[in-house]
Amino acid sequence: MLGSTHGTLTTTSRPARVAACGEHPGPAVHGTADEQETDVSGRPLHAEVPDMERLFRPRTVAVIGASDAEGRPGRTVTAQLIDWAGRVDARIHLVHPTRTTVFGLPCHRSVRDLPEPVDVAAVLVGDPLPCVRELADQKAGFAVVFASGFAEAGTEGAAAQARLAAAVRGTGTRLLGPNTNLNAFERFRDDLDGPAIALITQSGHQGRPVFALQELGIRLSHWAPTGNEADLECSDFISWFAGRPETGAIAAYVEGIKDGRSFLLAADRAARRKVPVVAVKVGRTETGARTAASHTGKLTGADDVVDAAMRQFGVIRVDGLDELQDTAALLARARPPRARGVAVYAISGGTGAHFADLATAAGLDLPVLSSAKQDELHQWIPADLSVANPVDCGGHPVGDARGRRIIDALLADPSVGVLVCPITGPFPPLSDRLAQDLVDAAEETDKPVCVVWGSPVGTEDAYRTTLLGSPRVSTFRTFSNCITAVRAYLGHHRFTTGYRSPFDDAPRVPSPSAGKARALLRPGEQLSEHAAKQLLRAYGIRVPREHLVTSAAAAVRAAGQIGYPVVMKASAPQLAHKSELGLVRIGLTSASQVRDTYRELTDIARFEGLPLDGILVCQMIGRGIETAVGITHDRVFGPTVTVGLGGVLIEVLDDTAVRIPPFGEGDARAMIGELRGRALLDGVRGRPPADTDALVETVLRVQRMALEVGDGIAELDINPLVVLDRGQGAVALDALALCR
Amino acid sequence: MLGSTHGTLTTTSRPARVAACGEHPGPAVHGTADEQETDVSGRPLHAEVPDMERLFRPRTVAVIGASDAEGRPGRTVTAQLIDWAGRVDARIHLVHPTRTTVFGLPCHRSVRDLPEPVDVAAVLVGDPLPCVRELADQKAGFAVVFASGFAEAGTEGAAAQARLAAAVRGTGTRLLGPNTNLNAFERFRDDLDGPAIALITQSGHQGRPVFALQELGIRLSHWAPTGNEADLECSDFISWFAGRPETGAIAAYVEGIKDGRSFLLAADRAARRKVPVVAVKVGRTETGARTAASHTGKLTGADDVVDAAMRQFGVIRVDGLDELQDTAALLARARPPRARGVAVYAISGGTGAHFADLATAAGLDLPVLSSAKQDELHQWIPADLSVANPVDCGGHPVGDARGRRIIDALLADPSVGVLVCPITGPFPPLSDRLAQDLVDAAEETDKPVCVVWGSPVGTEDAYRTTLLGSPRVSTFRTFSNCITAVRAYLGHHRFTTGYRSPFDDAPRVPSPSAGKARALLRPGEQLSEHAAKQLLRAYGIRVPREHLVTSAAAAVRAAGQIGYPVVMKASAPQLAHKSELGLVRIGLTSASQVRDTYRELTDIARFEGLPLDGILVCQMIGRGIETAVGITHDRVFGPTVTVGLGGVLIEVLDDTAVRIPPFGEGDARAMIGELRGRALLDGVRGRPPADTDALVETVLRVQRMALEVGDGIAELDINPLVVLDRGQGAVALDALALCR
Repeated sequence: MLGSTHGTLTTTSRPARVAACGEHPGPAVHGTADEQETDVSGRPLHAEVPDMERLFRPRTVAVIGASDAEGRPGRTVTAQLIDWAGRVDARIHLVHPTRTTVFGLPCHRSVRDLPEPVDVAAVLVGDPLPCVRELADQKAGFAVVFASGFAEAGTEGAAAQARLAAAVRGTGTRLLGPNTNLNAFERFRDDLDGPAIALITQSGHQGRPVFALQELGIRLSHWAPTGNEADLECSDFISWFAGRPETGAIAAYVEGIKDGRSFLLAADRAARRKVPVVAVKVGRTETGARTAASHTGKLTGADDVVDAAMRQFGVIRVDGLDELQDTAALLARARPPRARGVAVYAISGGTGAHFADLATAAGLDLPVLSSAKQDELHQWIPADLSVANPVDCGGHPVGDARGRRIIDALLADPSVGVLVCPITGPFPPLSDRLAQDLVDAAEETDKPVCVVWGSPVGTEDAYRTTLLGSPRVSTFRTFSNCITAVRAYLGHHRFTTGYRSPFDDAPRVPSPSAGKARALLRPGEQLSEHAAKQLLRAYGIRVPREHLVTSAAAAVRAAGQIGYPVVMKASAPQLAHKSELGLVRIGLTSASQVRDTYRELTDIARFEGLPLDGILVCQMIGRGIETAVGITHDRVFGPTVTVGLGGVLIEVLDDTAVRIPPFGEGDARAMIGELRGRALLDGVRGRPPADTDALVETVLRVQRMALEVGDGIAELDINPLVVLDRGQGAVALDALALCR
Repeated sequence: MLGSTHGTLTTTSRPARVAACGEHPGPAVHGTADEQETDVSGRPLHAEVPDMERLFRPRTVAVIGASDAEGRPGRTVTAQLIDWAGRVDARIHLVHPTRTTVFGLPCHRSVRDLPEPVDVAAVLVGDPLPCVRELADQKAGFAVVFASGFAEAGTEGAAAQARLAAAVRGTGTRLLGPNTNLNAFERFRDDLDGPAIALITQSGHQGRPVFALQELGIRLSHWAPTGNEADLECSDFISWFAGRPETGAIAAYVEGIKDGRSFLLAADRAARRKVPVVAVKVGRTETGARTAASHTGKLTGADDVVDAAMRQFGVIRVDGLDELQDTAALLARARPPRARGVAVYAISGGTGAHFADLATAAGLDLPVLSSAKQDELHQWIPADLSVANPVDCGGHPVGDARGRRIIDALLADPSVGVLVCPITGPFPPLSDRLAQDLVDAAEETDKPVCVVWGSPVGTEDAYRTTLLGSPRVSTFRTFSNCITAVRAYLGHHRFTTGYRSPFDDAPRVPSPSAGKARALLRPGEQLSEHAAKQLLRAYGIRVPREHLVTSAAAAVRAAGQIGYPVVMKASAPQLAHKSELGLVRIGLTSASQVRDTYRELTDIARFEGLPLDGILVCQMIGRGIETAVGITHDRVFGPTVTVGLGGVLIEVLDDTAVRIPPFGEGDARAMIGELRGRALLDGVRGRPPADTDALVETVLRVQRMALEVGDGIAELDINPLVVLDRGQGAVALDALALCR
């Protein structure tokens, strides 16, 4: 390995990939004035894209702490880095405090002795901080830090990691790691063509099976092992890979998202460029979250918010590494679909029925083929077999020229966007020819041809040689993974077609509401119901007409102005569970009732020792559908907007949906669509439909509040927001606001 | 193939498997008086178990329509049957109307010419009916009918299939098929030991990958291809396999269940014997149901009822054939668990975190290891790595003697029932030794050792030779399938431990309620609310005190007897949507209100042209939780009992659960536990808990009705059944009954 390296150490240039890649620079490298815009919250509107070209294709590489001592872990690493530098045609510099040569190459005594600024410096020493500082002084491109014992190891480690991050901040030098590894410098297959998978992992072992896809003929272009992400993070690599011409899909194994906004901007950048991002994200459970924290020191974040972030920006979340591989591989290779229909072709009626059942349950569309197409297929397929879709050929036609004609006829159908052929059991007389026909047909179409090779053995020639040998056929081992990948493929194209970035529409300057709202906030305090409603009113959210009064006479005057019947409620800054305490009275129809109620409410409050700021006299609102809209503050993503439906549904089923600002009206509607009880809004039990538009409008106004003053709000809960009949609007009957 | 066969054709006996199997006869062959019991509905209480020994290990085999003509499909089939007969040491008789020899063996001209009754007759002719009749006359054991074009081909085919079934009914001859194949007569590996998978499929191609498991070292004992199931059905084979000593697990691919009761009894038999049944069942969607019908002519049945049937009797339902393979393989091999805890051991923290996240989300229990155990593990694992469970060894200890010690220490932990080691990427210096250590450790424990070999390549030695070579290690390719299988394994043992068959407790004789109830039924008609409530009262289900009156004066008298306040409702046999028509009035507190209401209700009815049978004056019931309990008639399973919760939850979310009688109180409680809104019964928004016991009691009373008079009920819907506060009972406020 080292032999082949030596010869290239002094070579300065070859007509190598560096130059070739340079012809297709990532076009959105940051720095233009336009891209440094921020929204009203002061956060950026475009991903900042580090130029990773120097990291993956450096001209100069340094190894700090190089070693060739037998038995030292640094030996293997040093050797591999020397080998890699040779392969990418970079000059290499070794640094060791006492050695003059390592592996026969000259050694420098310290970073300060390096003869030129280096593009990549691999730091193999146990205490990397001094070296990293020196590298930053020397304007190194990238410091890659292997040492562990940082954020994953507790508070002290986290502080040490913060010092590493500080050492490079603003210097121009970027840091990969600590707790990273050699994955970026592996030997990739370079004999594969076409769009590739770019891989990002926060754990090397977890990326290994994706890397191994190359042995199945799937091209991999890069592997970014981000480790603890003191500086460079997963999002930086998503952003950069999304601009690379060779990237067909980005695959990521993620334990924690370091910065929510960066992640959204990276995903947005990929969505704008129609580059699919497929991710495994740990943290669905408490166990997963705890274990991930002890692995790379990352917070996994609230899983429903992570899920929402991914859904909003089209990141395809999968559970297993096998799904990550299969989905990324299909998305990397397949061209945009011409139709959303999936044709299922099987040599067994049972196989077709089973696949169709699972595919339909997963939401794929299996269009019934036209009768003309069915007639065409029946030229080759016995009349008693169903060819409506799934198409059951019964087996025999596969053994002769009919086999290929059936495949071509299906691929020629305009309703068919994807052809799937599940072959559950290998039966060489049929399946060998079928595999070859599928491979040949795939060469002549731009529609994806997907094959499931269901045999658990996997050493059959038809699988290993014929199917895996084709760059045009996507081969799966299970129905489930094929369905997951095809759904992701069609979903990705549906999502990115006409994608409009919500960052383009995000407000840049505060609305007049912002100032009014900010004046109402009381840091660290819970607002009274009345003040919380003023906050809502500042953003144009309808609340009942109401007056805060401090005498029975004022209450009667207020009721007269508002109009009977009225509702009366005790009001105090920290008051919760008003109803349970008997501090809410509805349907009061006369001055005497209002007067009596005033006395009763103040008596109860006195008895309970509650210091009231008054009694609210409120307009009584007609019946409608109870919903809840609010803001919560996520540790990773900041202010988020939630909506829930139906008092009992929210309480019993936690039937809520969440989005991270900024999002558009479409997403506000999609949130409501995600609610299990959404049919309530359409009217059940003879009720007329509710004013869903008003609910959407309220969600968007709450979002505006979250964007403009969200940093001052720990929690806002409008509950209930009563959505009246269509055309009648929505009214916030109660609200709770907790300031940060 | 034929060469090896010829030599055995005239052999009459060998010390072959026939005799060996005969030493372990399936003990529950039907025929004892006790087992012919029926329940109150006249249906059997025990599975009828055909003796399949003669089918799988015959002494005599006939091939009807034998052929050796080149190019004829019968040639291959005949050859394979001759070969098989030789392997199982059976005498073979060929039948052909004109040939004197086929493959050099003598031919008989017709079934009537057969020299002895045959155990198995394979019928290869296009119109099998005459042959089947003759075989039944000759007291053949089994007629195996290959021809297609029966129920799968429409109405005429279904009629022909019914004639086939009729030809053997009551004759002692049993029929397999039509539309079956050679799967039962395949060449099985006989060099594998230990418990085996017995396979049942309604589609040959779909069983192929399970059969191929033998190439991975998993033993398969039988394959029953049931085809269209004119006579013998899937359930018969479940029942028989469940009694075989070599059966470790039964795997089934099912498109439709022919007879619901037979299926329940077969599953019950397997559950009593603690034999796991794992099944793929098509029919989750309309597309799947339609396609299955066109394949083997089967109705897939209402999927939620199929799901309930499986859950009730412990059948493990999986979606994919890969899950079928992996789950059946683990269940066949693994001995009963000693603890439900799962220990996860990985050479990477990321792998452990990811697996733990998915496993916990799937409901597996990963106990935190005791601090003593953690200390023990830290002898071999660096102190900075987490060994709480998942256990992260960091990789290096795997390379030396520490590796095996870690595995043994985990297996020795009493909280650990299953050890899982996910190896996502092969790294031969570590993974080869790890695989060998796992295999060696598995030899010395009776706890299951599960390994996930996550590399997509699958040609690695550690996988193919080391792991697959071990009969003690269960190897998976994905996290997901490992988790599915382990969950099924633990769930199966939880289910069967102390399993008590509901058939043992099913009522044999009608209760006094049955006669009263039957007298109220009106075939084909919908009962009036009052009559439906009498039906409920017959079964001791509480309804409000009420009187049906036909005059205002009688209404006032009734109200006086019942006690104010009262509810009044119009009553008529076919009356639905009473509330919407204004025909229900609640909270009437005086005689004058009752008198006025009587007039108003009869006026509305006259205006709407509704012929009333009177006005119901009913006791007014306090507030409670609205539920619904009912009976529906399933085409496959007959009467089923459903329960739903919370008016809006039932209507908007279809939040209901279903069970098939007979079931016990535990299942009635489990139904309620399946409801998404179950927390409503515990009390929300400050309400006290509801009387869940009374709801359970009502479900059981409705079940009793379903068992005793269910054949006369098309639909019963008690809605709402108001469940009052704990200790206060449950009251049926309204009921709809439609008779069959």
